[in-house]
Amino acid sequence: MPLGRWKSVDHPAIEDVAIDDVLHALADPTRRRIVRMLIEEGDRPCGTFGLGMAPSTISHHFKALRNAGLIRQFDSGRQRMNTLRLTELETRFPGLVDSILALSEPERPGR
Amino acid sequence: MPLGRWKSVDHPAIEDVAIDDVLHALADPTRRRIVRMLIEEGDRPCGTFGLGMAPSTISHHFKALRNAGLIRQFDSGRQRMNTLRLTELETRFPGLVDSILALSEPERPGR
Repeated sequence: MPLGRWKSVDHPAIEDVAIDDVLHALADPTRRRIVRMLIEEGDRPCGTFGLGMAPSTISHHFKALRNAGLIRQFDSGRQRMNTLRLTELETRFPGLVDSILALSEPERPGR
Repeated sequence: MPLGRWKSVDHPAIEDVAIDDVLHALADPTRRRIVRMLIEEGDRPCGTFGLGMAPSTISHHFKALRNAGLIRQFDSGRQRMNTLRLTELETRFPGLVDSILALSEPERPGR
């Protein structure tokens, strides 16, 4: 995957991410579910999360995660792939993502 | 302070508070500042936080904290007092409030 492909979508530098952004992004069960799936199953394309929602709603959730520095998106062929920025986030807000995921239910209906 | 006074304002039972509510409430520097002041200086009336904002804005922030189970409000004479529900919150979401406050700047301009 050439590095240039990352430029197809805007991503904030991790030092520009505020804790407000991360808290807002994770204050939603669908977005926590996306993060959990990426942690447990690795990088995957947007269409494979089985969220059962309108594409515009799903797109909104991915954008919220991207703008909060939680995920990176890149185009691979005709698919938009998602990868977590956990290492960067762990440096910026140590323990925060883990703590929130540990304290919330694993919202994964149908799994 | 008679217990009946607490009924003048609605408060959620702590078991009805979702982590989404707490994250939303603490995803704001003014609301974190209010919580910090209550932790450090104890119960106090709404008008004494020196927030420098319109009363309607301040009222909105206190309501968000109250609805998220972070504070209890009660009327004392002509003042509306605020007290943290830290013990209850600590039981429901152990470590969450501390973790968020520790990772965010102490937003206290003028102090």
